[in-house]
Amino acid sequence: MIERIAILGTGLLGTSVGLALRAAGYRGAITGWNRSTEHGQLAQRMGAIDSIADNALEMAHASQVVLLAVPIYATLDFMEKLSPILGSEHLVTDVGSTKRMISETAAKLFNTPERAAFLPGHPMAGKEGGAELGDANLFRGAVWLFTDDPDAKRSPHSAALVKGWREWVAAVGSKTIDLDPSRHDELVAWVSHLPQFTATALSALLESEVGAAPELKDVGGRALREMTRLGASPFSMWRDIAYTNTEAVEHALLALEQRLAHLRENLRTPVLREEFEQANKFRKE
Amino acid sequence: MIERIAILGTGLLGTSVGLALRAAGYRGAITGWNRSTEHGQLAQRMGAIDSIADNALEMAHASQVVLLAVPIYATLDFMEKLSPILGSEHLVTDVGSTKRMISETAAKLFNTPERAAFLPGHPMAGKEGGAELGDANLFRGAVWLFTDDPDAKRSPHSAALVKGWREWVAAVGSKTIDLDPSRHDELVAWVSHLPQFTATALSALLESEVGAAPELKDVGGRALREMTRLGASPFSMWRDIAYTNTEAVEHALLALEQRLAHLRENLRTPVLREEFEQANKFRKE
Repeated sequence: MIERIAILGTGLLGTSVGLALRAAGYRGAITGWNRSTEHGQLAQRMGAIDSIADNALEMAHASQVVLLAVPIYATLDFMEKLSPILGSEHLVTDVGSTKRMISETAAKLFNTPERAAFLPGHPMAGKEGGAELGDANLFRGAVWLFTDDPDAKRSPHSAALVKGWREWVAAVGSKTIDLDPSRHDELVAWVSHLPQFTATALSALLESEVGAAPELKDVGGRALREMTRLGASPFSMWRDIAYTNTEAVEHALLALEQRLAHLRENLRTPVLREEFEQANKFRKE
Repeated sequence: MIERIAILGTGLLGTSVGLALRAAGYRGAITGWNRSTEHGQLAQRMGAIDSIADNALEMAHASQVVLLAVPIYATLDFMEKLSPILGSEHLVTDVGSTKRMISETAAKLFNTPERAAFLPGHPMAGKEGGAELGDANLFRGAVWLFTDDPDAKRSPHSAALVKGWREWVAAVGSKTIDLDPSRHDELVAWVSHLPQFTATALSALLESEVGAAPELKDVGGRALREMTRLGASPFSMWRDIAYTNTEAVEHALLALEQRLAHLRENLRTPVLREEFEQANKFRKE
């Protein structure tokens, strides 16, 4: 029953969603909009979208499902703009990395019988790059988190679109998990944001310490490359995450600082064995 | 001119050296010894060694080049035992991950005109596993560090063996770099030990925080798997490293704790951008 999808933002995720829908057998329309029209044209040439629109809001209005695949603050901006012009025949969903602020905004601006539905979503998949790395298999085997409001009062029409969109997410190969928005943000602070900020701090520190001697970077080999690969992640994406999940990230970073200090103070005591055993356990389960 | 090599310890590194020498065209004898004879037999079946000896010291005495491919404290033990029974017709070399203590011991027990030569070495290559992962290409493109004493007073015979061994290391595809032992230990504290202990602390922390909910580990995806893969490293190997490079590792860990705190205190300030830019730089050069 979903026949018109609009993708706002044709970066890696937006482009990959378009390609994955096509690969999963979706035959309806997919229109696209992108802040840089040139990049939007790339997604079109790749077959992720049928056409590229100049006006994001008009395009959204003409669709049934609107996928916001832009950074978090841009998502919040679009929510403000879309709320008054969409209605009970629409579903808006997103791919933002933090969900508390987006879910709060959704409760204010969407999800009444007269308004469009908003389903907050977060596919745990990514690569370093933009539309050019768009991949129909990006979501295969990945987890796609939803932080929907169980008490949302939706029109039957928009509620059916929510159900339909969940089915497409399963069809592109993702395993869906439903979480409370605050629990989501705490959880991703541990398993996603903490690893990123750790790689950033480690890479920045190593740049200060051995950056002047590039030949010495080779010395670290695979382990070093792996532990610093995320150091290449762009600030532009992580700024919004740092701003919208500050408290949980602070908590996780402080816990890691304390764990590192604990290890440092016990390099020659039996505690070191316990820490290795605990770490081994994480990798084994 | 090297025709008899003894490999003491046929784990991943010892086995890989045997396989790599054969692949590079070495046609002399390779004998092996291993604490567990069963594992030594695996290296023999794989073609890394010709035969497995019961007595490590007798085997070493019958060889020209003795490669110690055992943990650091076992290397130091063998150095004590080999020094009195080997002479100017022998070279002993090793693959230990820290070099200051081994180099100091070498200066006391080796490298006189009457005694065997000792060339402290450290191939920056590894995988998670033992002999079964032995790989003739493990050292191809890797850096093989040496921390030789430039003032060593060696017999012409053992000096020629040193030269010959360096040529085989180049023949198996490694790029060699010579470093002062203390500088070596400081450098590897940054580019090897710090990444390992960071992965251990991060994995141990995540086991405490989300270990009870294994389905949530899937949420982290590739980035999480990558940042915690080294969490599977065995304590048995890293204990010796922690003991023999304590000060440099403490220094590096403390610096990372401070860098993480700096980042934590600046999640909403322009400093976050600077940290990402510094990290990006590390990955670009």
